[in-house]
Amino acid sequence: MDLTRSWTTTLVTPQGDSSLEEAILQEEAVEVTLNEELVGTSMVLPENLEEFALGFLFGQGYISRPEDVVEVLVCPQRRVTVYARIESSLEEMAEETVITSGCGGTGKIARRFFSEDYPPLAECRLDFQGVSALIKGTLGVSPLQQMTHCVHACGFWSGGAFQAAYEDVGRHNAVDKVIGAILLRHFQPAGAMYTTGRLTSDMVLKCARMGIPIVLSRTAPSSLGVDIAKQAGMTLIGYARPGRLNVFTGPERIVRDGLNLAGVE
Amino acid sequence: MDLTRSWTTTLVTPQGDSSLEEAILQEEAVEVTLNEELVGTSMVLPENLEEFALGFLFGQGYISRPEDVVEVLVCPQRRVTVYARIESSLEEMAEETVITSGCGGTGKIARRFFSEDYPPLAECRLDFQGVSALIKGTLGVSPLQQMTHCVHACGFWSGGAFQAAYEDVGRHNAVDKVIGAILLRHFQPAGAMYTTGRLTSDMVLKCARMGIPIVLSRTAPSSLGVDIAKQAGMTLIGYARPGRLNVFTGPERIVRDGLNLAGVE
Repeated sequence: MDLTRSWTTTLVTPQGDSSLEEAILQEEAVEVTLNEELVGTSMVLPENLEEFALGFLFGQGYISRPEDVVEVLVCPQRRVTVYARIESSLEEMAEETVITSGCGGTGKIARRFFSEDYPPLAECRLDFQGVSALIKGTLGVSPLQQMTHCVHACGFWSGGAFQAAYEDVGRHNAVDKVIGAILLRHFQPAGAMYTTGRLTSDMVLKCARMGIPIVLSRTAPSSLGVDIAKQAGMTLIGYARPGRLNVFTGPERIVRDGLNLAGVE
Repeated sequence: MDLTRSWTTTLVTPQGDSSLEEAILQEEAVEVTLNEELVGTSMVLPENLEEFALGFLFGQGYISRPEDVVEVLVCPQRRVTVYARIESSLEEMAEETVITSGCGGTGKIARRFFSEDYPPLAECRLDFQGVSALIKGTLGVSPLQQMTHCVHACGFWSGGAFQAAYEDVGRHNAVDKVIGAILLRHFQPAGAMYTTGRLTSDMVLKCARMGIPIVLSRTAPSSLGVDIAKQAGMTLIGYARPGRLNVFTGPERIVRDGLNLAGVE
C-alpha cells in the first residue's frame, strides 16, 4: 500500500521558476462499519486501519473495552468491518454531539462525555528513561514526516516499555490508532501516550475515557485540555523532550533521577 | 474576552524541578443555531464568532452565498444565532457525511460535496507583493501563537489588498472564519487564502466550494488536497514564503517579477 505519491511542483520565486519533486502523503476515505451498519467515513492515512477503526468506534462511544471487540476485518474498497458486542443500537447511540475543535479528526463527541465521571486511573509512574524511549520510539516510527511534512505521530508506553507508534494525516486519527491498539492488542492503558500534536479537549478526553494516566505532547495544550486533565486526575505534559517536561497537571507521576521526590506540586 | 489563561507548570528535568508561568489558549464550546434550531456545538477560540458561525454553516452546507445571510447575533452563554434564507430544512439536510481527516474542525462534510462540480473560478492573479502582504498580514495578526503555541491563523487577500486574518485553536476553524468573513463582509472570493495549517481534503474542498482560486499553506498539502485542487482548477501552494512558492497546481496565476511569463507549467 503506497503511503506517498510523487508530484512535480513548480518552485516559483520572483527571479524565475524551477522544478521540484515532492512526496505527498496519501489521504483516503475509509468507511467503518459496525455489525454490518455504516457508522462513518473518515479521511485517513490508509495504514493500521484495524486500530483506526476501533479507536474511531471508541471515540464515537460504541465500544469501550477490549472485551467488546469480536472481529476486525480490513476489506477491499477501503472499508473496515468491525463486529463487536454493543449495548445500544446505532440509533440509540444518536445523541447531542459536540463538534470537536480546530482539529477534530473523528469530528464529533457525545456531549455526555464532557460531563461524565472519568474512570479511576491505575497507578503508573514514568521515569526519564521511559520518556526518552517513548519520544524516540514515536518520532522514529517512519520517514513519512520528513518526506511529506503532513503527518502526526502518536506513541504509547506501558508495562515499562515502549509499545507502538502510529501515524496519520491528522493528530486525532493517530491518537485513535493508539486507542485502537489498546483495544486490539490488549496493551495496558496504565501508561503514557505521546503525541506530536496539540492537546485540545477532544484529544485529552479520549485518553481520560480510556484511563491513560499520562499524556505528553511535543507542543502545547489548550485551556480545556488542561481542565479535563485536572478533573480526570491525569498527568498532562507539554513541550515534552527526552530530558525536559513541562508538567501542567499531576507532576507526581514523573520519577526524578530514579527517585520520586516528595513534596513536588 | 480573555483569549489566554495563565497556568503555573512544573518544569521537570532529571536534575530537579522549577516553576514556570505558561499562557494557555482559551478553548470553549460554542453553539451555533440557524433559524432558532441548534445545528451544532463546536470547540473554538472564542473570538470572531460571527465569522465562525457563518463559515461553520457554509461547511455544513446550509448557506452558500452572502445573500443567504439575514442576521448574525452573538448571544451570552457562547451561543451564536444565525438567521438565514435556506432552501432545505435542517432535517432535509441530513445526508451521508464524511468525517474529516486528521484534523477536521467542523467535523463532517456531506459526501456529495466531494463529487460535485465546483463553481467556475473568477480570474485572479497574485504577485509577490501580494504574497508578502498576505503572509505577513496573517502571521502578524496577534501574539497569540507566540504566547500559547496553540493557534492556527488564516488570512485572505483579494481586490489587490490584504483583507483580514483570523486565528483559532484549529486550522479548520480559522479557515471557517475566513469563509464566514467572505459571507459577512462581502469580500470578493476571487483572491488568495493563506493558512498556517496543512492542506488536507476538507480544507481545500471548502475553498473550492467558495470559489477561492488561490490557496497557500505554510506547510504541506495531502494527496487528496492536491487532487481536489487539480479537479477544481485551483492554484495550490505549499511551503509558502514571501519570496518562494512551491506550486502544486495552477502556477499560471502567480505573477513573476511583475510579468506573468508565458509557457510556465
